[in-house]
Amino acid sequence: MKHLHSMTQLTNKEIEHIIHTAKSIENKQLSPNYSGRFAANIFLEPSTRTKHSFYMAERRLGLEVVDLEEKDSSLIKGESLYDTLKTLEALGTEIAIVRQSQNGLIKQITEQLGMSVINAGDGTGEHPTQSLLDLFTIKDEFGTFEGLSVVIAGDIKHSRVARSNAYALKNLGADVKFVAKPEWQDKTISDKYISIDEAVEECDVLMLLRIQHERHRDPFQSSQYLEDFGLTIEREGRMKRSSIILHPAPVNRGVEISASLVESEKSRIFKQMTNGVTIRMALLHLLLEEGI
Amino acid sequence: MKHLHSMTQLTNKEIEHIIHTAKSIENKQLSPNYSGRFAANIFLEPSTRTKHSFYMAERRLGLEVVDLEEKDSSLIKGESLYDTLKTLEALGTEIAIVRQSQNGLIKQITEQLGMSVINAGDGTGEHPTQSLLDLFTIKDEFGTFEGLSVVIAGDIKHSRVARSNAYALKNLGADVKFVAKPEWQDKTISDKYISIDEAVEECDVLMLLRIQHERHRDPFQSSQYLEDFGLTIEREGRMKRSSIILHPAPVNRGVEISASLVESEKSRIFKQMTNGVTIRMALLHLLLEEGI
Amino acid sequence: MKHLHSMTQLTNKEIEHIIHTAKSIENKQLSPNYSGRFAANIFLEPSTRTKHSFYMAERRLGLEVVDLEEKDSSLIKGESLYDTLKTLEALGTEIAIVRQSQNGLIKQITEQLGMSVINAGDGTGEHPTQSLLDLFTIKDEFGTFEGLSVVIAGDIKHSRVARSNAYALKNLGADVKFVAKPEWQDKTISDKYISIDEAVEECDVLMLLRIQHERHRDPFQSSQYLEDFGLTIEREGRMKRSSIILHPAPVNRGVEISASLVESEKSRIFKQMTNGVTIRMALLHLLLEEGI
Repeated sequence: MKHLHSMTQLTNKEIEHIIHTAKSIENKQLSPNYSGRFAANIFLEPSTRTKHSFYMAERRLGLEVVDLEEKDSSLIKGESLYDTLKTLEALGTEIAIVRQSQNGLIKQITEQLGMSVINAGDGTGEHPTQSLLDLFTIKDEFGTFEGLSVVIAGDIKHSRVARSNAYALKNLGADVKFVAKPEWQDKTISDKYISIDEAVEECDVLMLLRIQHERHRDPFQSSQYLEDFGLTIEREGRMKRSSIILHPAPVNRGVEISASLVESEKSRIFKQMTNGVTIRMALLHLLLEEGI
Repeated sequence: MKHLHSMTQLTNKEIEHIIHTAKSIENKQLSPNYSGRFAANIFLEPSTRTKHSFYMAERRLGLEVVDLEEKDSSLIKGESLYDTLKTLEALGTEIAIVRQSQNGLIKQITEQLGMSVINAGDGTGEHPTQSLLDLFTIKDEFGTFEGLSVVIAGDIKHSRVARSNAYALKNLGADVKFVAKPEWQDKTISDKYISIDEAVEECDVLMLLRIQHERHRDPFQSSQYLEDFGLTIEREGRMKRSSIILHPAPVNRGVEISASLVESEKSRIFKQMTNGVTIRMALLHLLLEEGI
Repeated sequence: MKHLHSMTQLTNKEIEHIIHTAKSIENKQLSPNYSGRFAANIFLEPSTRTKHSFYMAERRLGLEVVDLEEKDSSLIKGESLYDTLKTLEALGTEIAIVRQSQNGLIKQITEQLGMSVINAGDGTGEHPTQSLLDLFTIKDEFGTFEGLSVVIAGDIKHSRVARSNAYALKNLGADVKFVAKPEWQDKTISDKYISIDEAVEECDVLMLLRIQHERHRDPFQSSQYLEDFGLTIEREGRMKRSSIILHPAPVNRGVEISASLVESEKSRIFKQMTNGVTIRMALLHLLLEEGI
């Protein structure tokens, strides 16, 4: 495999191999070095976490990084993303990380490229490395996916993470259910919708999604969301002892989750970020060297 | 000490230790190396000198640098600076350099952080590394602060540098006076206001502050400022032989100082910039390794 | 020579020396290393190719890079480019790459600088490293310039590349002709204007220039341009077997050239980009170390 645009490209075995590689990097059993070689980060939409996570993964691997944003690119002279990638390839970069707004574009244009490309979020489509870091975090915690009860809560319909994670987790043997307001449910993903109160009592993993704060400027609506669908302190008290809380961040404190729970004992929110750097190192390494 | 948000945190002994460390780095007696470790530069307000000075200090120490600007950060999704710093910490950065517009914010949010933070200017509050580089430049020139006559000239009231420098220099034994238009005087800092003509004749160090050019679009006003409060060629001729001129830059040539004096014999304006990189290397080293 | 602002500064011998040095770097006979030393990239106008090409050249040489854009610079506080360069010099950078909009500015301000400066495009003036990479690509292909037929096609009047290349190629012994709409001809450069149909049959090198797409929003006009002045598939079929196609990119596919010819056998468009990194490595090396 040369490009990663979707979780649907990966078999269970390949996912396990990526996670295993990340674990070896974390344990320092594996220290790949790509000193003197170049990656390109092309983020045409805003991002803190993902962009900096990739940057740190690249630099930890010794990779040089060419940073491309829409504003300083020839894209504003009307050049297509394909020609930009061909240019970066000609300049000597071997792998590109691309975030942009058009669903499916990455898959479409990579077919004629010599360099590798990783999709770092395409519109409402996919964001496979976010899924991989979630899976890594779960595997690291429980040792297995088999039989785990995972609940994904939030705007299932518009989340690129929900779709990827639901797909992968089911294949890996987890029991996946969902919590969502009726208008955010998507029956093409699943019909197992339950209440947040049922969820907290049965799940091993509660995966909260980010609410697009832009749509909830009214503070009353936000606290209402927390009460109806979010993780309150009271609900957290009913979760199983060994259960964990995930969230892709940035968190809206007091909307998806009570502010004080963000850094609580069950929260793996910051651990996910740490794991994100490691899983991206593993992925870059596998795409550059061995193939997945 | 883990964070530097204000000069008021530092004792004279600590200031001397930072300056001594900078001198050892300059002399190459000390060559700290932090290769493979990460710093984050978070400049939410424009800056050339300070940002690039920190960047060069970091790279000379071998530090990797994550660069965060408001435009490309999740801040625009409503994330707080605290959560951004927590994120960077989770990603693996050990120290953050922060410039932003809210006085006192740095002090307030750093208490719960594991990583170190350096205040690189908070609104009209403090800008401690600018003070440290000024002190380093003075100490390097005169060998001592004791008994030195230092005059700070400009908009004392709105300058974050004036306040920090006045505080530190007085503690270190210098005699500090001020030159300012009546509306730019601040009696809470000092009541020792003198004329620019008195200043040039008695000072060892003339520390000019930058006039906010935005407020002086009228060229007549600018040349009037030079005549009434600035360093003209005539006034420079009356300065003591051993005296020096400092300015934090960017200089408004012909406003605070006659254009031809910027690169004159007494000027240490560019030397200050060189010293800024060295003192920041020292500070980063001390915060990361030894503690101050 | 310390600064490169124009191709007119270079003798034929110096051009050949730069090209020879680039070839040695390409062959890995020469591997200059400037680890721990600093360059500054100052791009005050948009650029993908040139900026990233310099960045990759610098990093391949081990140079650290300070990146300066108009938005984050003190320029917005009214500082002049001269003072910005003096500042970067004081901070410790040894060479600056500058793109900005004012013809001739680079030459004018570099006289008083200690650091080296390379002009990376000044308005409609010059862009010498684009010329050098074109010359490197031609020399690499044909082994000589003597007697080669080179045709430059496009907006000769407003192209900074056309002027530099015409000047250098004539001096190096090539026979240079031009294709341009009457309003884009410039008799001060040459009076040898021919049709595109004559050009394709006689040239060894067809150097297409970029049409400012902004001026041709009407798609009919664009395809009309291709028909009247551009390289169609039919015309490419009439080119000599050994002839090559150059274009500084970004290409307007279907305007200067039929889309499918961009990656065709005769095209050296992506090879030019690869060569651009190498020739810039050579130039940086020569300016920093040996002098040209």
